[in-house]
Amino acid sequence: MLHIVGLGPGSQELMVPAAVAAMEQAEVIVGYHTYLELITDYIEGKEVVATDMRGEVERCEAAIAIAKEGKRVAIVCSGDAGIYAMAGLVFELLAAKKDHLDVKIIPGITASIGGAALLGAPLMNDFVHISLSDLMTPWEMIERRLKAAAEADFVICLYNPRSMGRPKHLESALSMIRDYKGGLIPVGICKDIGRPNEQVIVTTIDELNEEDVDMTTTVIVGNKFTKIYDGRMYTPRGYQL
Amino acid sequence: MLHIVGLGPGSQELMVPAAVAAMEQAEVIVGYHTYLELITDYIEGKEVVATDMRGEVERCEAAIAIAKEGKRVAIVCSGDAGIYAMAGLVFELLAAKKDHLDVKIIPGITASIGGAALLGAPLMNDFVHISLSDLMTPWEMIERRLKAAAEADFVICLYNPRSMGRPKHLESALSMIRDYKGGLIPVGICKDIGRPNEQVIVTTIDELNEEDVDMTTTVIVGNKFTKIYDGRMYTPRGYQL
Repeated sequence: MLHIVGLGPGSQELMVPAAVAAMEQAEVIVGYHTYLELITDYIEGKEVVATDMRGEVERCEAAIAIAKEGKRVAIVCSGDAGIYAMAGLVFELLAAKKDHLDVKIIPGITASIGGAALLGAPLMNDFVHISLSDLMTPWEMIERRLKAAAEADFVICLYNPRSMGRPKHLESALSMIRDYKGGLIPVGICKDIGRPNEQVIVTTIDELNEEDVDMTTTVIVGNKFTKIYDGRMYTPRGYQL
Repeated sequence: MLHIVGLGPGSQELMVPAAVAAMEQAEVIVGYHTYLELITDYIEGKEVVATDMRGEVERCEAAIAIAKEGKRVAIVCSGDAGIYAMAGLVFELLAAKKDHLDVKIIPGITASIGGAALLGAPLMNDFVHISLSDLMTPWEMIERRLKAAAEADFVICLYNPRSMGRPKHLESALSMIRDYKGGLIPVGICKDIGRPNEQVIVTTIDELNEEDVDMTTTVIVGNKFTKIYDGRMYTPRGYQL
């Protein structure tokens, strides 16, 4: 039996009880070592398989192999288990080998939802999630999605917005969004949600400082109706008040 | 102090500890009566303000008024507190009156994420949330967003997919999506996630039976790469295996 567990943003207050139960029941815990630091309380005395960040395939293959030996395995992910995370890769690997395993996925609070709660209520109308990482999706496809989302005035959640390897992706994305929505649209920036150094910034496309954004940041761009009030950003649902 | 609390899909296993803590600390609990049935353990002995489903504005106004009296209030929502839910409305009401209140939002597992975990891993690449309810968004806008999302091949999560008042919305939406993606695209249907009568169906656009879908259902339409294997649906992330 393999559990794929979403840990949420990092704090125990935002980790669902089903995630804790899956870790407690597991004999073996598999995960990226930075995530394992979030759950030291739950992994004490267990067999642990830690890999580095780029080791996703290796990590999932190890988890599957150990589960096939008959052990109870939990593979842990930050945020949700199925959003740009490990759940899909486990199914891809099983399908490639025409293999079967009992897989149970425990969902978690993903960064957009955890971040939105800190920012106010930006996700009150239709929204998209777009990852700006072109490691596995061609940049042309990302660009097409950014334009489609901006043109149809979705609220836009940007994952993996900026890294050393792609310092210009956020700038390009915001410039495309600005073409459709204008520069005065509210933007929220969240970093290290639920952790001691949590950072939350409410700004606009024009005022955003790129230096506030890195790989562990989530950026939420409002729709044309999104407003800033009393330090929070919110998107009206459409009630007649 | 006003807490706006996302309860998740319904089971205690998927409710974050911060939600439980907010309810325990509250003197007054405000919510739609069906949601209050999910949390009878936490509201015993507390003052409860229950409203019917269409009473969202009334519910938020009541919660704000009681909080302004100095009481600790928790307003509860199913799923997440800020996705087509109460958090945005509270900020709208405060802004309309130029009023201030300490508001803390506790995020929850929304239906798409809870449903995706049961279906497999459909949300492994860029996705959108679109509500098919035209009570507060004009149908033309919903249609524009459906087309933009289908054309740019996002995975599409449909909220409020079908009700007595709008029996044809799902059919129209799927027909628009089919024009871009074709009818063989996997579709997942989830009903009553985490509750005793939970139902999960993996099918395709062409094979979907509309009778399986009602107001409490979440529908997830894959992208062109989404696959069905061993009864689950998953969207490849793009790893070279």
